[in-house]
Amino acid sequence: MVSEFELIRHFFTRLTPGAVLGVGDDAALLHVRSGMELAVSTDMLVSGTHFFPDADPFFLGHKALAVNLSDMAAMAAQPRWATLALSLPEVDETWLEKFSAGLFALADEHHVELIGGDTTRGPLNLCITIMGEVPPGAALRRSGAQVGDDVWVSGVLGDAALALAHMQGHIQLAAKNFAACALALHQPKPRVALGLALRGVAHSAIDISDGLLADLGHILDCSNVGAEIAFDALPISCALQLFLEQPLGKRCLLAGGDDYELCFTASVAHRSEVEKIAADLGLLLTRIGIITAEKKCTVRAADGNIINIEESGYDHFR
Amino acid sequence: MVSEFELIRHFFTRLTPGAVLGVGDDAALLHVRSGMELAVSTDMLVSGTHFFPDADPFFLGHKALAVNLSDMAAMAAQPRWATLALSLPEVDETWLEKFSAGLFALADEHHVELIGGDTTRGPLNLCITIMGEVPPGAALRRSGAQVGDDVWVSGVLGDAALALAHMQGHIQLAAKNFAACALALHQPKPRVALGLALRGVAHSAIDISDGLLADLGHILDCSNVGAEIAFDALPISCALQLFLEQPLGKRCLLAGGDDYELCFTASVAHRSEVEKIAADLGLLLTRIGIITAEKKCTVRAADGNIINIEESGYDHFR
Repeated sequence: MVSEFELIRHFFTRLTPGAVLGVGDDAALLHVRSGMELAVSTDMLVSGTHFFPDADPFFLGHKALAVNLSDMAAMAAQPRWATLALSLPEVDETWLEKFSAGLFALADEHHVELIGGDTTRGPLNLCITIMGEVPPGAALRRSGAQVGDDVWVSGVLGDAALALAHMQGHIQLAAKNFAACALALHQPKPRVALGLALRGVAHSAIDISDGLLADLGHILDCSNVGAEIAFDALPISCALQLFLEQPLGKRCLLAGGDDYELCFTASVAHRSEVEKIAADLGLLLTRIGIITAEKKCTVRAADGNIINIEESGYDHFR
Repeated sequence: MVSEFELIRHFFTRLTPGAVLGVGDDAALLHVRSGMELAVSTDMLVSGTHFFPDADPFFLGHKALAVNLSDMAAMAAQPRWATLALSLPEVDETWLEKFSAGLFALADEHHVELIGGDTTRGPLNLCITIMGEVPPGAALRRSGAQVGDDVWVSGVLGDAALALAHMQGHIQLAAKNFAACALALHQPKPRVALGLALRGVAHSAIDISDGLLADLGHILDCSNVGAEIAFDALPISCALQLFLEQPLGKRCLLAGGDDYELCFTASVAHRSEVEKIAADLGLLLTRIGIITAEKKCTVRAADGNIINIEESGYDHFR
């Protein structure tokens, strides 16, 4: 049987030219470039809570890193390094081969180096800490939204939650629609390039991994403002369109979670710049509402009626 | 029931004057001081693997941070910041109160700030990533041991493993002895001050959390050298002395694991400086052997015979 040290060496040790010292000592050593701040974020994915125990390990490797890259994107930080702590019920070399392939494929795409970690025996649990660089003052915080700002989101919303609802048997998606939604659930694309492009343009940003309303709510709380959102402006897929009259469809859209898109605010004067960023990145960016002085969040239908949503976001302990 | 956000706010959010931005955004922001490298390490503790499910949460909070501080000590880094990812089967406020008290008591002692993390539902799992500062070239790597170096260890060895053997029913310790050994197991003292004092003095260092021979073995492998260790020189407690004729006692001493002491090598010319550090810190530092050119590790008894140890260190997957 492969040992812990062999496992780390075989599956998780790669050249790390961007680090002073990578995997293999008591700690890694990094040089943060002069004039840069370090952005740090940690996410833990647990079997049975965040994914099914039989989830495809390639997708898990991708997603474990993607959720962390999404946090870098939301801070407008350039991701550079990551550590991985991994608890495994047993050493399954086929599983590890696929998991590390998924992880490194995304890491390579974003030039992120795995510089350390830990492996242990236990219930399946993946914990990645990601580190990136951002110039002082350039980070997009939750607290920067200003009254009158446009509220924007990237991509389309709710597909990941829709795929999950299908997998849990609550709805039945056509095969083609499920395939598209499953991609959003299993292989989310962290919006790193968008985050970087929004430096100096956006006033605030967050990634909407806990659902649009919950995460927009954090921006509103931290910025001491409110928002009015136009329900009909929200960007959705054809798959979700079919369920939009149902409570489940509305919940997926407004409170779904697992959408690794960015929600950000920017002044009206910056609209054309945001539109240019969308064109440059080939990424859908949609104006969905406006920041208000009144400290509440309203979602309004085209007929002017307010849409009530009970579950406004995912909370692991409710 | 308390929500995930309230839980983080109540138990884990404190002022972080040493960070640009602490808990509460998509990422924390840190300023690494000019001319410093960042040392980063991650450790994951899993219920049932690293501790008993009913372990005292105050001790767990202490230990989760202590094992990480020990990695900073082994690199001669000044610990500064940590993130905590926590998977919990349920929200138990009494448990969380004690856990965070244990964690912050040790964090305060070392001026470490908790700057971010994640909480989720799942089997109990604690993952801390620690970050510290070290001047370029000052880190104590595993690869620096030189032929002729003295091999040193801090503290006494094997007590944590002895306490565990008692708790598992393999041996029976007297109450007083168990109390002392349990302290080593539950509240290890990370040797941060020692690591800092060894900058420029030691050639190599490692923390011996996986057992003396396994971890010394990493120094030997990385430095391409061997070692001869004098069994009778190894520093032990009175409790362990009583079991030293038994295989279990020898195993606890040489391969026990959970000893968060440092093993380091330094040139013979630095003996008096190491002894001065011991005196200054009020910490037992013991010369246990010498680095050799022949690439093997020998443990020799006072009578000149070689002691054979089968299990040379803890591996989670053997």
